[in-house]
Amino acid sequence: MGLDGIGSASYGPEAALSILVAAGSAGLHALGPIMAVIIALLATLWFSYWQTISAYPGNGGSYIVARENLGPVAGLVAASALMVDYVLNVAVGISAGVGALISAIPVLQSHILLLCLSILAIITLVNLRGTRESGLAWSVPTYSMIVCLGGLLLWGTAKILASGDVQPLIPPPAIPKATEALSWWLILRAFASGCTAMTGVEAVSNGVTAFREPRQRYAHGTLSVIVLVLGFLLGGIAITAHAFGVMAMDQSQPGYQSVLSQLVAALCGRGGLYYVTIGSILAVLCLSANTSFVDFPRMCHLVARDGNLPRPFAVPGRRLVYSVGILFLAVSCGALLTVFGGITDRLIPLFAVGAFLAFTMSQAGMAAHWWRKRSKERSGTTLAKLLINGTGACITGAALIIIVTAKFTEGAWITVIVIPLTILALLAIGRYYRALDNQLLSGDPVFALPSQVAPRILVPIQRWDRVTAKALRYAIALSDDVTVIHVTRLGGPDDHEDNEKLRRDWDRFVGRSMRAERRPMPDFRIMRSEYRSIVAPTLRVIEEGRPDHPVIVVLPELIEGSWWERLFHVHRERRLRARLLRYGDRPLAVLGVPWQLRAQTLQEQLMEEEPPLAVPTTAEE
Amino acid sequence: MGLDGIGSASYGPEAALSILVAAGSAGLHALGPIMAVIIALLATLWFSYWQTISAYPGNGGSYIVARENLGPVAGLVAASALMVDYVLNVAVGISAGVGALISAIPVLQSHILLLCLSILAIITLVNLRGTRESGLAWSVPTYSMIVCLGGLLLWGTAKILASGDVQPLIPPPAIPKATEALSWWLILRAFASGCTAMTGVEAVSNGVTAFREPRQRYAHGTLSVIVLVLGFLLGGIAITAHAFGVMAMDQSQPGYQSVLSQLVAALCGRGGLYYVTIGSILAVLCLSANTSFVDFPRMCHLVARDGNLPRPFAVPGRRLVYSVGILFLAVSCGALLTVFGGITDRLIPLFAVGAFLAFTMSQAGMAAHWWRKRSKERSGTTLAKLLINGTGACITGAALIIIVTAKFTEGAWITVIVIPLTILALLAIGRYYRALDNQLLSGDPVFALPSQVAPRILVPIQRWDRVTAKALRYAIALSDDVTVIHVTRLGGPDDHEDNEKLRRDWDRFVGRSMRAERRPMPDFRIMRSEYRSIVAPTLRVIEEGRPDHPVIVVLPELIEGSWWERLFHVHRERRLRARLLRYGDRPLAVLGVPWQLRAQTLQEQLMEEEPPLAVPTTAEE
Repeated sequence: MGLDGIGSASYGPEAALSILVAAGSAGLHALGPIMAVIIALLATLWFSYWQTISAYPGNGGSYIVARENLGPVAGLVAASALMVDYVLNVAVGISAGVGALISAIPVLQSHILLLCLSILAIITLVNLRGTRESGLAWSVPTYSMIVCLGGLLLWGTAKILASGDVQPLIPPPAIPKATEALSWWLILRAFASGCTAMTGVEAVSNGVTAFREPRQRYAHGTLSVIVLVLGFLLGGIAITAHAFGVMAMDQSQPGYQSVLSQLVAALCGRGGLYYVTIGSILAVLCLSANTSFVDFPRMCHLVARDGNLPRPFAVPGRRLVYSVGILFLAVSCGALLTVFGGITDRLIPLFAVGAFLAFTMSQAGMAAHWWRKRSKERSGTTLAKLLINGTGACITGAALIIIVTAKFTEGAWITVIVIPLTILALLAIGRYYRALDNQLLSGDPVFALPSQVAPRILVPIQRWDRVTAKALRYAIALSDDVTVIHVTRLGGPDDHEDNEKLRRDWDRFVGRSMRAERRPMPDFRIMRSEYRSIVAPTLRVIEEGRPDHPVIVVLPELIEGSWWERLFHVHRERRLRARLLRYGDRPLAVLGVPWQLRAQTLQEQLMEEEPPLAVPTTAEE
Repeated sequence: MGLDGIGSASYGPEAALSILVAAGSAGLHALGPIMAVIIALLATLWFSYWQTISAYPGNGGSYIVARENLGPVAGLVAASALMVDYVLNVAVGISAGVGALISAIPVLQSHILLLCLSILAIITLVNLRGTRESGLAWSVPTYSMIVCLGGLLLWGTAKILASGDVQPLIPPPAIPKATEALSWWLILRAFASGCTAMTGVEAVSNGVTAFREPRQRYAHGTLSVIVLVLGFLLGGIAITAHAFGVMAMDQSQPGYQSVLSQLVAALCGRGGLYYVTIGSILAVLCLSANTSFVDFPRMCHLVARDGNLPRPFAVPGRRLVYSVGILFLAVSCGALLTVFGGITDRLIPLFAVGAFLAFTMSQAGMAAHWWRKRSKERSGTTLAKLLINGTGACITGAALIIIVTAKFTEGAWITVIVIPLTILALLAIGRYYRALDNQLLSGDPVFALPSQVAPRILVPIQRWDRVTAKALRYAIALSDDVTVIHVTRLGGPDDHEDNEKLRRDWDRFVGRSMRAERRPMPDFRIMRSEYRSIVAPTLRVIEEGRPDHPVIVVLPELIEGSWWERLFHVHRERRLRARLLRYGDRPLAVLGVPWQLRAQTLQEQLMEEEPPLAVPTTAEE
């Protein structure tokens, strides 16, 4: 669990190399130092998140930490950054996975986008079904990637360090000629791209509740393992890539080989081990995309519960998953993949911005947390913790500035525009709900009792049958002031109906019984529709009464047993109901009296309700 | 009006020639005799329909004539035949129009299907909008086609008859070599294909009511003009095509030229006149497709009113058009065009079957009509009329048998399968509605009055606000037996709600007022949901009462002002309502009490209702 953060090892170094390729083989020499800085940055994050886990044993995602320590707006800034980051994590994870796939099976090269969208669709469906992920399905590819790739890199690194010069089994393609000199600017851009390797680190602090007790110890352990494995992979890749002269290639060109594919082929040839390694990389990248599918809806649920996202985001669906969040993520990510053609390289510049903004917000939030604590306690450890998180905030903040600057024209500007827009949208949604609550909650604290006057009742009928009879029975039971309306010419001016028959039926069925029982006779009216609608005539009858006299419109409703029966009925009463409910001039309510063509029993209704997988909502212990 | 039947002149001869091409230039000699037989058949139809118009001055479509004279099943046979025929008329008309278009602008050759579907979409939208067709838009292309094409053919025929040998201005492509001998079988197949030229003749008898008074005279006149113009065009095409050696080409191959395009180019070159003529042919073919868009929904409306098609087919939409029928036609025709790639030649074998089955049913119906009349009157004219329609029925019946036999393997089998299936579907739909009426109309003729016991009332609430207060006011007004339910844990097991606050609110807002007024206190219950649904707890409370005691569930409903606000609310009450209405164990009704975020006034509702084009439904005098 959480180990899928190491998937980013497969695109981070490649992203750096794809910038350095401009400087030719000189660029390759710069990879080592850049990776060293990134590993140092990773160590800072390790310290910082270690403390976050200790301080927030519940759920210490950036959103919660920023909101609780820096206020709700800062929380929304972190939430927006994370939302953008999650979308990009899915897109980059899938496209890098497809990159690995087409390295292994070059014939798929021309179907990159299709492959990306298919993987996205599969991940979406799996998450919508909410099948409980089996530990095995997760651990096998992760451990196999660590063992295969890690083992190969260890062996390669050892050989390189021992002999100094190692011949690759399958030599990587020649490094293209340099098109520009190795400048500081180029190194900064490569560093900014390489930072995407760290984007998976936050996941552990988001999901502390998902660990077994003692939670913190397991969470700390996982964080350490991720950071160590990731650091080791990044270091190993940097050393072996340099030794073998592996350079990034263009994913959109035929013959593309990802950096890892070139490395693995150079280390062990294109045999069984090669395919197992590449397969496990693909699986880990898909799992890393899947992590966003777990975290994004969960965070949206929290934001929606705080009133800053539409409420449907907060509602668990039948399968106990937040379907709205999942679908939103899938659609945004599908759009992103389509626009960028599923090419990892084009997505990378957008990516790191959101992650590092979230890192910074989280670290700053933790720093504020310790600062406040220190003003109460004044202990040395708190000062040390403040220093660690403060330094973390500064470093990640500095990295954020470098990333935005270096990548601005290559695509980071999109993120720089989208994140503030998202923040504004979240704030606007919050204002909407507050305005709504003002309208619904303010005002008369004392409940105004209704008058004892029986309401006026209207029953629009189309012909005299059992449905109508049932509705009329309800109407008469509720009030003595009942008006039955029949609207003619609904089929247009040439629709000649037998109004006489309706009058005779009325007298025969209703009139006689009412007279026999000496009950007040309902008013029966036949009205002409002008525009083939029953709405206007019904509203005119409603308008006749006193403005404050409550009116109930009783609608006979035919309820079909099966879906195809819906095609057979016109359901004017449904449109009428919708229109009446929107009508604000009078106190008006609508009583639907159903007539079931095939009714359901309680047993059947409960059967429909019970989810086939009765798993608890969030706990995943 | 109605003159668009002549559009079939453009694909009938071509269809015959596309069969005859197999016999090479020998086939061309057979065109004359085949067209002569077809013109003779056309004359028979003229006599027959003349009488139909006299006998049915209302609407003498095949469906009405067959149903009234041969019984409802025969009526449905005719209806099915016509439905299939209308769909095919649209498909063939559009694809032949596109054929003319690509003859004039060969660069469009590779986009046949796209062009077909675009024209279909335009015709569908125009008909859904129900704009009143201006006479000018109809008559200009029709008359221009008659004048240009008719004039050219007249001039060409005259020259050919005078000099015997005329050189074409632009010679048509060479006739391909014969692949088989000119056999009777080939001639029969060519005749069957050529019969599609007559499919437009019925239109006049379908729409007699659309003529000015004296209707019959105008209808007779129009019928004669159509038959004469069509006969003349067919004859002229046969003569000139023979003289110039024009043969049909394959529409799916590049360089395709329709027969008429070759003829017109041979007669006047590819100058302005050529483009005007081809343009008018395209327009007339689109108008002929449009005729089906007027007639198909109108016939479906009649069949639906008789209970053999789903009722939505009988309901005029906002723009006074039968939208369901239009959409059904558009979708079927789009599917047909897609399956057959928009190639006229592939659609032709399916086409004539429906038309000739409808002809035969109509003639047989008329014969039965005169037979019955004769048994009462015994006049000579009735006998003559019986003979004319009887002969008509025999001849069209014979043609139908020839068409089905000759075209069976080429595609007519599809029609032969589809028409009986349609008949079965129409019969099944009729049975469904009769069973429904049995259920709804039979039984207690005397209206059972409701007991005087007030109903039990249930109000599911989520929190205490104005929406809930309004709903509760209605509940208390209707009965003293009110239960308010609050279901907790809707967000899953970790959704901790403040039930104490709800209880306090309840006492503060409702309890005090009720006690002050000494009104019976509603029952207030907080229940736990097991599967995050309010349906099951609500049903359990309903099940507590006596089984025959009517229950009304009062649902507070928030009504949004604008469409986007819908995204912001979960509307559990809508799902609850749908489930309650399907619940059959108890007498149960659902009262929706709306709270409008932006209410509509009567004026606004009427504004929405009034159609911008206040035209009468069917009369088009």
